[in-house]
Amino acid sequence: MTRWKPDAEGRLVKAAIELFDEQGYEATTVAEIAERAGLTKRTFFRYFADKREVLFSGSQELQRLWLEGVAGAPANATALEVVTAGLDPVAEMFAERQGYARMRAGIIQANPELQERELIKLQTLADAIKAALVERGVSANAAMLAAQAGVTVFHVAFGNWLAQADPAAFRRLIDESLAELRSVAAAT
Amino acid sequence: MTRWKPDAEGRLVKAAIELFDEQGYEATTVAEIAERAGLTKRTFFRYFADKREVLFSGSQELQRLWLEGVAGAPANATALEVVTAGLDPVAEMFAERQGYARMRAGIIQANPELQERELIKLQTLADAIKAALVERGVSANAAMLAAQAGVTVFHVAFGNWLAQADPAAFRRLIDESLAELRSVAAAT
Repeated sequence: MTRWKPDAEGRLVKAAIELFDEQGYEATTVAEIAERAGLTKRTFFRYFADKREVLFSGSQELQRLWLEGVAGAPANATALEVVTAGLDPVAEMFAERQGYARMRAGIIQANPELQERELIKLQTLADAIKAALVERGVSANAAMLAAQAGVTVFHVAFGNWLAQADPAAFRRLIDESLAELRSVAAAT
Repeated sequence: MTRWKPDAEGRLVKAAIELFDEQGYEATTVAEIAERAGLTKRTFFRYFADKREVLFSGSQELQRLWLEGVAGAPANATALEVVTAGLDPVAEMFAERQGYARMRAGIIQANPELQERELIKLQTLADAIKAALVERGVSANAAMLAAQAGVTVFHVAFGNWLAQADPAAFRRLIDESLAELRSVAAAT
């Protein structure tokens, strides 16, 4: 289903997601996650502060990849094009993780506290993209509008992608979501 | 500075905001808020679950007014125009509360927990607007994009308005923010 890195961190994430999916997030303990991964609790706590953080271990990688894409966007692109240019490497990352992403989405959907954490992580991401746009010379207002719109475009495409049979469809769904945003934002 | 309704709830909000501003959010107790308002703690708890909720008492009114405006938007408007049509009554509500809004923004800015709460309230608002658009026949994707973009347009305009000398400038700042969104979203 998913290609997992053979390292301890990757094994812990895989074990946690499987256990959350099988027996519920609340019912799963750190000891069980470590055991399933063939590691100790001590090793778990070298990578994660608590079981919740396992679900958000991908946030930093997402942000790093997205900002790399933003940095490489052409100089003549409009602000939102700069933001969505950052989604090329992001779409590639997700292409090999659709099964994991589906399980994770189901776990978060079932828990209001996790939904709040997800919302805060998305806001942190939007703030980082905004800062990268300001760095490129975009005004603070335009940067905030483009960053937030970009994160929403990503979020809508992500939801559609979870329901798609083809894991490689993410990039196309982003383009569709961007076209839809332009359509809803058009002046009559 | 601000026109306060003479009711108990309004007096409690005014007293709380003043005390948070004067001596800090953390240091202020419910007993002090009630005393400043000339009311009892018992009365406080008839209106609010805790001192935090006082800061978010306007969220429901904001949502009610915004949704009224959405319901009254012309049938031929694009989805984001429907959303921003809802901001006419919202701008009027804020015009008489700029001093309060400034103090409140300062209190929230100083406290990460309050910032998270604000973010969650804005998401609740976006979800309600999305549902109203779907009710009008807009597709789920377009409704989410328009609702989120509308809340961001509002949020950017709100930040600019706090720094404006003229409390009546809010409606104009919303139009400017909407124009800016269209500009950043344009295709090259």
